[in-house]
Amino acid sequence: MDEFALIAQYFARAPRRAALGVGDDAALWPLDGQRALAITSDMLLQGRHFLPDTDPERLGHKALAVNLSDLAAMGARPCGYTLALALPEVNEAWLAAFARGLHRLADAHGCELVGGDTTRGPCTLALTAWGEVPTAEALRRDGGRAGDDLWVSGEVGLAALGLALQQGSPDSPLLASQATLDATTQARAIDAHETPVPRVALGLALLGVASAAMDISDGLSSDLLHLTRASGVGAQVWVDRLPGHAALAALPVAQRRALQLAGGDDYELLFAAPAQQRPRVAQLTQTLGLTLTRIGRLTPLPTVQWLDHAQQPLTEVPCGFNHFAPS
Amino acid sequence: MDEFALIAQYFARAPRRAALGVGDDAALWPLDGQRALAITSDMLLQGRHFLPDTDPERLGHKALAVNLSDLAAMGARPCGYTLALALPEVNEAWLAAFARGLHRLADAHGCELVGGDTTRGPCTLALTAWGEVPTAEALRRDGGRAGDDLWVSGEVGLAALGLALQQGSPDSPLLASQATLDATTQARAIDAHETPVPRVALGLALLGVASAAMDISDGLSSDLLHLTRASGVGAQVWVDRLPGHAALAALPVAQRRALQLAGGDDYELLFAAPAQQRPRVAQLTQTLGLTLTRIGRLTPLPTVQWLDHAQQPLTEVPCGFNHFAPS
Repeated sequence: MDEFALIAQYFARAPRRAALGVGDDAALWPLDGQRALAITSDMLLQGRHFLPDTDPERLGHKALAVNLSDLAAMGARPCGYTLALALPEVNEAWLAAFARGLHRLADAHGCELVGGDTTRGPCTLALTAWGEVPTAEALRRDGGRAGDDLWVSGEVGLAALGLALQQGSPDSPLLASQATLDATTQARAIDAHETPVPRVALGLALLGVASAAMDISDGLSSDLLHLTRASGVGAQVWVDRLPGHAALAALPVAQRRALQLAGGDDYELLFAAPAQQRPRVAQLTQTLGLTLTRIGRLTPLPTVQWLDHAQQPLTEVPCGFNHFAPS
Repeated sequence: MDEFALIAQYFARAPRRAALGVGDDAALWPLDGQRALAITSDMLLQGRHFLPDTDPERLGHKALAVNLSDLAAMGARPCGYTLALALPEVNEAWLAAFARGLHRLADAHGCELVGGDTTRGPCTLALTAWGEVPTAEALRRDGGRAGDDLWVSGEVGLAALGLALQQGSPDSPLLASQATLDATTQARAIDAHETPVPRVALGLALLGVASAAMDISDGLSSDLLHLTRASGVGAQVWVDRLPGHAALAALPVAQRRALQLAGGDDYELLFAAPAQQRPRVAQLTQTLGLTLTRIGRLTPLPTVQWLDHAQQPLTEVPCGFNHFAPS
């Protein structure tokens, strides 16, 4: 039983008052007839989601960023959050830096910390964040239609490269390539992994434009499956058109594809939109200063095809992350 | 720096849009001009808040109960929650029992699970729950006035007795007393610790009656200080009038007082109310079938006095729990 089957079997139940329950980037809790709070919870564990020596200021940023990314994926405007924090000891320098990173990102989005919990234990961060969204326009995973274009924001795969560089296991094929990456590129990849930028402005701009959306946290190949399944469609993706940093282009093709398809932690938005929205999406690239790349389309057949530059389907598709995948 | 100083220094900031921020049982997030969502987060760690062999069905109950207790302490009606869950492995029997305990309590209060997170790691439960309350009537910690009566619901100290029985360290003075407790009483004490009953109906009934309220989670002596400090008052408490199970009366007085003043996990409500509300509070005891005991009063002087049956102040007061207390 994997992570998603576990959730489905034991925790997913039909929503009653909620406008949207378990299974999307965030739940939708109705405020009135028009508006809802998008509500999301994420937990980060030391040793699993971050290393013991992770810079605490960056960790404060990331803990909130992954939640704001979920709100962005719903098209919600962040407004508040709670923080449950377990720490092995009180280290004031660590706490001050962590709080600085957390508050800076929160203030940039007008998202206020209103409560939480502190306890002694292995370093654990559990945040719940909420934001407002017009209920009927909220960007859900289940609104995609066959024929819609498939888009992705920013660059895909750089965060996974950053993680691989940091982990640097001796048998990693990436280490062979590392020599080809200059220090600036390596730092940029590590930044992408440690301080992801939640695409809040894009999410808001996609209200009324996108038919479906989600953020890329577990890896594109895994995440896309959630969107297509929820929408009852399939997809074709042009693998060689996936936007990536120049550093990725320099890697052997198998490594590049592994990073781009299976690598997580990009926190870019994956979204579908009808073809007639192309001019508006192109305009958003300009107004937001953020690359938006058309990477494929949704199809009626409920399968996902990953096509290379010759339009041939890949026969092996690297898989995204699953916390309880059979090992 | 203890738990509360830590929160104050790094995480408590002036609320902006929130009607009430960090520092009460729950935050108040405005829904409209009249109503608010009370929002609370609690995290339970294996080894700290529960034992590895804790019955999973009871653990599911308790994980939600401690959050519903916070909502009760605000006078809010629970409506929804999220669950972030870390587990070392997928154990279906454990999960089924955990979910059963969780859903049963949630269903009893019409409180729906709308989302969350699952990950692999040391068993950790982080819940965020919310409920509705009329903003102006919400039961806060800061509304107590000198002269108000001080009340407590149910029995105080039984949960701490249950914990002591379960931990059973060989040098515990309780073990000497354990022989005097029959099996039914021991089971009742362990029930009080493992399956606390959140006082939701009482919280709702206290709207417009109580001037201040909070739940007893860290222990009466510690929790009362939060209420008096927030209200800018002091208190006198009649220690020998504290309501306790008959089993406590059989213990040596020092042990009884330690359990009743320092023992946590009761999840009863501690509340203040003007003297003219005594008839209404007495009526609530009848309608709710729940003992409500007047245990003291709030005073103008900002000190807390614990008085024995001879009206003499205790010279040693057992302290409540603090996750980062200097050891």
